[in-house]
Amino acid sequence: MGLIVQKFGGTSVGDAEKIQNVATRVIEEKEKGNDVVVVVSAMGKSTDHLVDLAKGISIRPNRREMDMLLTTGEQITISLVAMALADRGYPAVSLTGWQAGIITEPVHGNARIIGMNTERIDSELKQGRIVVVAGFQGITEDGAISTLGRGGSDTTAVALAAALQADKCEIYTDVTGVFTTDPRYVKDARKLLAVSYDEMLELAHLGAGVLHPRAVEFAKNYQIQLEVRSSIEREAGTIIEEEVTMEQNLVVRGVAFEEDITRVTVIGLPNSLTGLSVIFSKLAESHINVDIIIHSILADQLTNLSFSIKNEDLEDTIKVLENSKEKLNYERIESESGLAKVSIVGSGMASNPGVAAEMFAVLASNDIEVKMVSTSEIKVSTVVEHAKMLHAVEVLHHAFKLSGTLVTP
Amino acid sequence: MGLIVQKFGGTSVGDAEKIQNVATRVIEEKEKGNDVVVVVSAMGKSTDHLVDLAKGISIRPNRREMDMLLTTGEQITISLVAMALADRGYPAVSLTGWQAGIITEPVHGNARIIGMNTERIDSELKQGRIVVVAGFQGITEDGAISTLGRGGSDTTAVALAAALQADKCEIYTDVTGVFTTDPRYVKDARKLLAVSYDEMLELAHLGAGVLHPRAVEFAKNYQIQLEVRSSIEREAGTIIEEEVTMEQNLVVRGVAFEEDITRVTVIGLPNSLTGLSVIFSKLAESHINVDIIIHSILADQLTNLSFSIKNEDLEDTIKVLENSKEKLNYERIESESGLAKVSIVGSGMASNPGVAAEMFAVLASNDIEVKMVSTSEIKVSTVVEHAKMLHAVEVLHHAFKLSGTLVTP
Repeated sequence: MGLIVQKFGGTSVGDAEKIQNVATRVIEEKEKGNDVVVVVSAMGKSTDHLVDLAKGISIRPNRREMDMLLTTGEQITISLVAMALADRGYPAVSLTGWQAGIITEPVHGNARIIGMNTERIDSELKQGRIVVVAGFQGITEDGAISTLGRGGSDTTAVALAAALQADKCEIYTDVTGVFTTDPRYVKDARKLLAVSYDEMLELAHLGAGVLHPRAVEFAKNYQIQLEVRSSIEREAGTIIEEEVTMEQNLVVRGVAFEEDITRVTVIGLPNSLTGLSVIFSKLAESHINVDIIIHSILADQLTNLSFSIKNEDLEDTIKVLENSKEKLNYERIESESGLAKVSIVGSGMASNPGVAAEMFAVLASNDIEVKMVSTSEIKVSTVVEHAKMLHAVEVLHHAFKLSGTLVTP
Repeated sequence: MGLIVQKFGGTSVGDAEKIQNVATRVIEEKEKGNDVVVVVSAMGKSTDHLVDLAKGISIRPNRREMDMLLTTGEQITISLVAMALADRGYPAVSLTGWQAGIITEPVHGNARIIGMNTERIDSELKQGRIVVVAGFQGITEDGAISTLGRGGSDTTAVALAAALQADKCEIYTDVTGVFTTDPRYVKDARKLLAVSYDEMLELAHLGAGVLHPRAVEFAKNYQIQLEVRSSIEREAGTIIEEEVTMEQNLVVRGVAFEEDITRVTVIGLPNSLTGLSVIFSKLAESHINVDIIIHSILADQLTNLSFSIKNEDLEDTIKVLENSKEKLNYERIESESGLAKVSIVGSGMASNPGVAAEMFAVLASNDIEVKMVSTSEIKVSTVVEHAKMLHAVEVLHHAFKLSGTLVTP
């Protein structure tokens, strides 16, 4: 007998039938003799509908009031899930963020959890009830309703699992787990039995939205075992934990990719202590996300600086750079759009220095030019032509032996 | 400089444009130098939509969870109204029932307010903010979200006005006030400048839903002056207070009416101590509302008992009576449908014994047969043929001098 936290996202609670399905999954766990805490998101597109309501009133809605508005979405879902459970004879109680004791910093729209008061949940569990908690929301210390921002319900589930010392935190979604690459594009993609927290963070782009990076970081900090699995299919999902014991033979765990990349190169930049910080702080001020940065400095020489951005940010980026031309004193700017990023991820590669070399060899032998490279302990990213992106993913997926049938343990 | 409580019902906050209109009315009051507390209901038909959601999950939804669900309706409205105010430069803060300190008994669906903790509202008002409170909801002493049942937002407004010692409680609605009779049917109907609490209770049927009887009782207990007025038109509404100083010359203040009445008569009922209680408790158990009851007992004789019900309850009523035939030992049942109730209301009639007689004379001289009569201190009700209902209302309205132009004070 243990304690399980189960999280169901917006598509898993999208209508009455799906809410009944959630009740079925929860009851199955309860019938195994476990205590169950359920975390749910707002139904389907209901948050979009609430945002539209606010936009009808104000172009820039007050943030405190926006939280007051948006948190009604999850409150509706918890009441319906608890009703469905009660209707089937399972005592259940729904709790909003403040009733569940989820304390956040005094910020609206993107608050961090700073404390958990689990007294109420403990007491409800002790009375044999299934506890249904509203995801994405909390309360500030002075009693204002706050929200956790994107991926908030995942974070609620992981934080509750940590505070309640749950045996497991299951994230139910519309895919069956984490894949070696995106199965919508690569037919050989297969589901991973397990990945580490760090790998999961790097693989975030595979099967978009499967699990929010913030929740993964939280799970890593508190060493909470996660399982990503389907709310419809019964098959085992993907376990996310610190040390992956299964699939140890795999040096590379997955191939991630991202399109719409532009490379910008600042040519003839004089060496200076402040040059880089000027460029990237100005870009950050304009809300331009920079991904890969390549720069190597030789003493007393002009250098080139390259970085990658999203295609759509090119115009703004050039504006920012031109506004600082006098200060930076560079020669000129070049840019190339229509690129894509292809990365291999796996914690095995830290102790396996040949992996990057093998990646470059595979790409070269397939006539795929590498335009930029960036590496971390567990990832090698390359920038290639967009037209060759999927081809690159397929040959890498094959070369690193990721294809094939899933062997369930 | 005073404190005004303004309440806006569901039709007054039905869409973005109407919410902007509410903001305008609130700002006008604030600009007069008053502190303003605004109480709002759920938008238009949104409560019906939430009820449908619950019905999709469970035939008999858990009552605690129903309250969790329904209270999101007002929470949405308060956030939008506060956004609209903030957007126009007026600092505002929305408060749910629990944030506003509205404590109720531990009941779901129809809880009574048992305490008000106004610290939070006081502090917000002191900081110059407009406070927007969710109507219809509160919190139990052990922290569960509760609702006040039908007319709940009116009750919230009056309770807040009492607790905050407000100078006035304004109830904004889609009519311009309380009328001498229903202006949709009687063209001579005119708006009353003032009525007493008791008269308002009896006139509840005039301009259906204008003000919930429970809120009127609350106002009477705490002597809160109410004003019922239009959220669109700028004209003065109707003042509701203990002693009506204006319009003292009127003995009768209004003519109320109600259609779809059926009279049921139990003929040949033996005298017994328990007969009446058996009949009416059985009817209550079957959720049949009985209005007028006429019964007079003569020693050692069989008597007849008459009472009025809604047309739609006739079948159930007859079933209940037939099931108890053996116990009650009556001869037979008769019933007449297609009737209507016409009442005159006015606190002046308590000290004016000829009013009922004058009513009967007016009806008789217009060939309107009176089928049942029931009287109270401030009301005389008659049951007449439905076909003659509006004629009866018109001749009484004229005879008691209710027609004519409104004289504003």
